[in-house]
Amino acid sequence: MSAPATTATAHLRIDADRLLARIDALAQIGAIEGNGVCRLALSDEDRRARDLLVSWMRELGLEVTVDRIGNVLGIRAGEADARAVTIGSHIDTVATGGRFDGNLGVLAGLEVVATLNDAGMATRKPIAVAFFTNEEGARFAPDMMGSGVHQGALELQQMLATTGIDGATVGRELARIGYAGDTPVGDFRADSFIELHVEQGPLLEHEGFDIGAVTGVQGISWYEYRLGGSSNHAGTTPMHLRHDAGYVAAAITTEARRMALDMDGQVATVGVTSLVPNLVNVIAKEALLTVDLRNIDEQRLQQAEQCLADYIEDTAAAEGVQVSRRCLARFQPVAFDPGMVGLVEDTARSLGLKVRRIASGAGHDAQMFAPNCPTAMIFVPSRGGISHNVAEFTSAEQIRAGADVLLQAVLQRAM
Amino acid sequence: MSAPATTATAHLRIDADRLLARIDALAQIGAIEGNGVCRLALSDEDRRARDLLVSWMRELGLEVTVDRIGNVLGIRAGEADARAVTIGSHIDTVATGGRFDGNLGVLAGLEVVATLNDAGMATRKPIAVAFFTNEEGARFAPDMMGSGVHQGALELQQMLATTGIDGATVGRELARIGYAGDTPVGDFRADSFIELHVEQGPLLEHEGFDIGAVTGVQGISWYEYRLGGSSNHAGTTPMHLRHDAGYVAAAITTEARRMALDMDGQVATVGVTSLVPNLVNVIAKEALLTVDLRNIDEQRLQQAEQCLADYIEDTAAAEGVQVSRRCLARFQPVAFDPGMVGLVEDTARSLGLKVRRIASGAGHDAQMFAPNCPTAMIFVPSRGGISHNVAEFTSAEQIRAGADVLLQAVLQRAM
Repeated sequence: MSAPATTATAHLRIDADRLLARIDALAQIGAIEGNGVCRLALSDEDRRARDLLVSWMRELGLEVTVDRIGNVLGIRAGEADARAVTIGSHIDTVATGGRFDGNLGVLAGLEVVATLNDAGMATRKPIAVAFFTNEEGARFAPDMMGSGVHQGALELQQMLATTGIDGATVGRELARIGYAGDTPVGDFRADSFIELHVEQGPLLEHEGFDIGAVTGVQGISWYEYRLGGSSNHAGTTPMHLRHDAGYVAAAITTEARRMALDMDGQVATVGVTSLVPNLVNVIAKEALLTVDLRNIDEQRLQQAEQCLADYIEDTAAAEGVQVSRRCLARFQPVAFDPGMVGLVEDTARSLGLKVRRIASGAGHDAQMFAPNCPTAMIFVPSRGGISHNVAEFTSAEQIRAGADVLLQAVLQRAM
Repeated sequence: MSAPATTATAHLRIDADRLLARIDALAQIGAIEGNGVCRLALSDEDRRARDLLVSWMRELGLEVTVDRIGNVLGIRAGEADARAVTIGSHIDTVATGGRFDGNLGVLAGLEVVATLNDAGMATRKPIAVAFFTNEEGARFAPDMMGSGVHQGALELQQMLATTGIDGATVGRELARIGYAGDTPVGDFRADSFIELHVEQGPLLEHEGFDIGAVTGVQGISWYEYRLGGSSNHAGTTPMHLRHDAGYVAAAITTEARRMALDMDGQVATVGVTSLVPNLVNVIAKEALLTVDLRNIDEQRLQQAEQCLADYIEDTAAAEGVQVSRRCLARFQPVAFDPGMVGLVEDTARSLGLKVRRIASGAGHDAQMFAPNCPTAMIFVPSRGGISHNVAEFTSAEQIRAGADVLLQAVLQRAM
């Protein structure tokens, strides 16, 4: 029987200085100019960071295991033989990353443990703190590899055989850095999973919120379009006789914007546009563009895909331009457990913090847990929405707020 | 006093086979795969082609002069000491050019002379056939160099000092190939100038006309725009918080199309669009684009420039995107003499040909003569509007028609 957290544990707060000191120490490993970090998955920097994390876990009395894909779990035993309330994220970064993305969620987990240790407080359920291999996918595709294997969504042998951008393979690199563990994968079931993460977007800062209670992860639809028109002279070809692939590309881009503004929770981005021959006085005969569509609602995402596909077909036909497309990626949205979303929201409010529900536009380890256990994410603001950049920044106060919400939400589940 | 051309000379016709044989022979010099020609100005191929033309001119009894910029004139004396009715164009090509662009106008001029020689017919005014150095500008900028110097619009010494894409200079290359002549430039005044040329656009073919009576050359406005936004995550950045340089580039492109369709005689082309970083899931922080605007009417061209500049300023401001622009080129429209346009039109009709007035979207040697003497151009259709391409094509019948219009129009001026 758990003690009511509201009375016995509601006064507990994390030690922000200690947490920030760990963030800073970890950020020294793979540090790059501008306060950033380059710590690609399974690199020498990743090994040194892992070693540091494991030493901290052991200092905190956690029982450390390493599984076959290199995920590291540190478990603080509970009073009962129950599934663990699991806190986790990742410590790999992109090549020009910041110090908070991923790292914050793992180190805040250690801070939760340290706070409970200092208070001499036992919990009914175990508490696990985990970091998962290769969340970023910057060296090895796919991303969220470790958590995907951990939760049975990705196949271990296939992932171990994956070749990276530098020709290395996951399995060999795991062995090389000493993190090819022997704990089986695919069947770990948590009581619940909670990930604290930086928003990587501008919404919380822009609207003045401290905390985002993440409702889920947007579905993603990536298509590449190749448009084939005719190169002709910009001066001598009347407008009505053109087959201008560049014009069709531009029309798709503006229509994607119009549609996204018109639809609930829809974002649309044309990030790639390349024209051939790309000359000032020649009508483009070819255009390559990509369309990135995201929505938290699968039905609306499908609607957006269809709406844009229809527009592209009509517009290209009217211009006499050929279209071919291929799907680069398609993920369905992930919805987090409503009870867990409510838990984050209520906890933030009880701490006097301004909280709003928010959908994650990026993928996270938490989404691999969502099908298997009640899962939540806590977002803290990213200054200017800047992410995957050395200029990524979240203030000490914002980090303190996020970690306190994590602590209290974990206690609600664990007591 | 001239003989009335309608009676004494109206029956004369050019010999299409002889003209086509010359076109074919000239096209062997610098021939490239696909029936095309690579004969850059002042190259070895240009020298061989010039030598062949000069030999033909001499065979036809023309008095050949070479001026200081390498323009070659062959003059057939008239009965009177009058200014010459001048026929001319160019024999240089772009790197992947066709066999008709420029060459047709020069060889049709020789065919006019050959036809008059065969008929034993003298004209009151002299008839000159000219080819001008470096019309294409593919090796040395600016284009229309020889005709510009010839008519005093460009300065000789400056042009001789021009360095080409391969590091060579015009003056040294002229000397090397033996075409640094000693005839002074800048003060030759023709009775009139007539240039037969392929349309390089699709209009005549598309509308079923044999002949275009060219009213003038469109004014050209080239601007390059650099747009500066913010790179952000395509998933996590709400639409209303974006500073998307790629979106603004696309909006400019679609607006340019809309505006051109809305304005009389306006064409608008965005031929260049380049995004940075050009990644599927990153909002573009930079975009580079070019806008090519053309109109036969200077006032309307200025109106188009202003209209688009206003739109760009407003759209970029609304998106929070910085704009800088620079002018790449700006030429005022050139209007040909109405009497000469009417002469081409009437002549074509009298030969039973379908003729329409048409503005030239490309620059031509004729425009250098327009300020100094009555000037006309005769267009024949380009299959599919294809130009500056080995696939450039005009049929034997279309060439015959154009050359017959040239012959009869020249006779109208020269008798």
